[in-house]
Amino acid sequence: MNQFIGSGVITLTTDFGHKGPFVATMKGVMIARAPQAQVIDLTHETSVHFPAEAGFWLKRAYRYFPVGTTHIAVVDPGVGTERDIIIAVVDGHAFVAPDNGLLAPLVVSPGSRIYQLDMTRLGRFGIELDRVSATFHGRDILAPIGAELAAGRVQPEDFGPEVTNIVPSWVDEPQIVEGQVRGVVIAVDNFGNLITNIDAALLSDIKTPKVRAGGRVFPLRRTYGDVLPGDYLALINSFGVVEVARAEQSAADGLGLERGAPVVVLNE
Amino acid sequence: MNQFIGSGVITLTTDFGHKGPFVATMKGVMIARAPQAQVIDLTHETSVHFPAEAGFWLKRAYRYFPVGTTHIAVVDPGVGTERDIIIAVVDGHAFVAPDNGLLAPLVVSPGSRIYQLDMTRLGRFGIELDRVSATFHGRDILAPIGAELAAGRVQPEDFGPEVTNIVPSWVDEPQIVEGQVRGVVIAVDNFGNLITNIDAALLSDIKTPKVRAGGRVFPLRRTYGDVLPGDYLALINSFGVVEVARAEQSAADGLGLERGAPVVVLNE
Amino acid sequence: MNQFIGSGVITLTTDFGHKGPFVATMKGVMIARAPQAQVIDLTHETSVHFPAEAGFWLKRAYRYFPVGTTHIAVVDPGVGTERDIIIAVVDGHAFVAPDNGLLAPLVVSPGSRIYQLDMTRLGRFGIELDRVSATFHGRDILAPIGAELAAGRVQPEDFGPEVTNIVPSWVDEPQIVEGQVRGVVIAVDNFGNLITNIDAALLSDIKTPKVRAGGRVFPLRRTYGDVLPGDYLALINSFGVVEVARAEQSAADGLGLERGAPVVVLNE
Repeated sequence: MNQFIGSGVITLTTDFGHKGPFVATMKGVMIARAPQAQVIDLTHETSVHFPAEAGFWLKRAYRYFPVGTTHIAVVDPGVGTERDIIIAVVDGHAFVAPDNGLLAPLVVSPGSRIYQLDMTRLGRFGIELDRVSATFHGRDILAPIGAELAAGRVQPEDFGPEVTNIVPSWVDEPQIVEGQVRGVVIAVDNFGNLITNIDAALLSDIKTPKVRAGGRVFPLRRTYGDVLPGDYLALINSFGVVEVARAEQSAADGLGLERGAPVVVLNE
Repeated sequence: MNQFIGSGVITLTTDFGHKGPFVATMKGVMIARAPQAQVIDLTHETSVHFPAEAGFWLKRAYRYFPVGTTHIAVVDPGVGTERDIIIAVVDGHAFVAPDNGLLAPLVVSPGSRIYQLDMTRLGRFGIELDRVSATFHGRDILAPIGAELAAGRVQPEDFGPEVTNIVPSWVDEPQIVEGQVRGVVIAVDNFGNLITNIDAALLSDIKTPKVRAGGRVFPLRRTYGDVLPGDYLALINSFGVVEVARAEQSAADGLGLERGAPVVVLNE
Repeated sequence: MNQFIGSGVITLTTDFGHKGPFVATMKGVMIARAPQAQVIDLTHETSVHFPAEAGFWLKRAYRYFPVGTTHIAVVDPGVGTERDIIIAVVDGHAFVAPDNGLLAPLVVSPGSRIYQLDMTRLGRFGIELDRVSATFHGRDILAPIGAELAAGRVQPEDFGPEVTNIVPSWVDEPQIVEGQVRGVVIAVDNFGNLITNIDAALLSDIKTPKVRAGGRVFPLRRTYGDVLPGDYLALINSFGVVEVARAEQSAADGLGLERGAPVVVLNE
């Protein structure tokens, strides 16, 4: 599906946390332009200054929103410098983000299109360049762009030229080496589950997969309740990736692991 | 009021926190089914793996939402195991939650009805069992059920048989022993106020109530400003339960108490 | 613009955090009265019991919402005591808050009007005084007032007499002394940026401004990326105030500074 038809639904993904009116003023800007828009917070607690976690979650989460959703992601340590802003169309969804690797995992989908924002065109969409701050393009550029897309008034291709090369992700895709799948912890959730970037599909050639992390090896189970409270396990989680968990407790605390920790899936 | 008529309003109560797209994908699933639904976060910061706090808050909070609201609660350490999912109707509101004690405090209301989800019926509501994850029924089962209820397309009784026995709450109701009311701290709020499960109604026979917690006894006052900043007090809070507080400071920090701490109301 | 015409948009600013159903029950009360209202969380993580941060952010953020927005702010350590509740109209926006200094920075705008809530009138708006709690006026008084304003059913002047004197802000406005501008850190954001109450306009007489905080002096730059990761800088942030930052790291952690720390802008 190569077409994007804005449905009025917008998601927001940032590393802003919940202090101050940063997310709120993005929403204010959007509803001023698109009063019918429905804005859903994807998450505002991705690791700060680390675009890869935002991209990881967006890639796994966008399918749960209706086709025609506009997804705005702002993890933007280079704000105000020469980095570009891109608009991508993937499976009938639109994505707006800085070109800093955030969207790299998403646009590998066949039929994806990517457009680079031409800043000289912003005036056409009512964005006054001399009122754009140097430190909050999320509010001053990405939010109005997202609102226009969501409202269906502007098409992705209207914002600038199509491009094929964008900045790659900060995190390498998992590697298969000597029958082992090697990835990393990309996020830790509220329960202390260690969520890796290893998609279940990569395990197809491993007959009896076990998961190694932090010097220990864990069995692959179906769900948390398959082991006793306090026991560790690995599983394919609800977003289709390998996760290391501890039943009713925090694997991150128990193992002393965090984002970036290597995780290996091997044959028993 | 024994009837439920879905009004399009949905509340969400979970222990997911705000990391990752867990809450957001539940909302995506719901607005895909019920685009007019209005989803309000009740709270996503109940104690993890502890259904009793979620049930406590839901019981005290649901009346502030319009009749016809659908309340979805997901504190679900047993997800993917044999635990059931139940749908309850209380005072014209619908509640959807795992059957793990979460809803037990709510369904004592006269005229309440409880239905047990029959998983074999999910197909009728467009929920494909083979696409249901083992670890996130909140998104894959409870969210679509809640959306159908909120949209008024399905009635609670359509999901399965009426039942009368459900799993009891993990926390005992307060006891009156020798003229004293004995309860526990069930939640701590952002200010460090210690919120107990002792309803004001239980104090009716106590002439001059005082509140004991952490080895100290506190006077029962009307509001925080009735004592000096830094002083402790007890009060009946805005949800009708006994609370131990410290004016402009954190009682939890000051007393070193947390969830589960015993609290006794006694006569002076 | 001296007129307020409720547009249905409401923002909420509190120090409630995200535990418990405090914010949610305010929303429930509001949508019960104004089902078409659109409620946006400005922030619920201002410093607890410190109205000045809420007022600071509201003053800088309200312009990003459509004219006709109703802004409710509840940082209310004096709840249930004799403190008043006020309704202000500024630039076509309405503000509802306790009279504890929170709104003081806002109502200096020319043409602002302030009304003091007359509690004896609450019955006219369907607020039953005997059902108002002593500890949560946010839910029991401010939320219904805000909903009536947003719905356009009641005008600010209907709630009580116009007043000109309100409680001043807890934080002094920055002073210009011997060519130096002296202010304080009023908020710390999720990145550890130290946000001051010094408006850029105050710097107009300083030829080459530098910023002193925590015994160190920082250059004034345009954006974070203008220095190397780990280096400190000062800048005029996206809300038009002086900010002390550290590129890709936390200035608050690095300098050991927090809310209240003095900040001075001086000439090189």
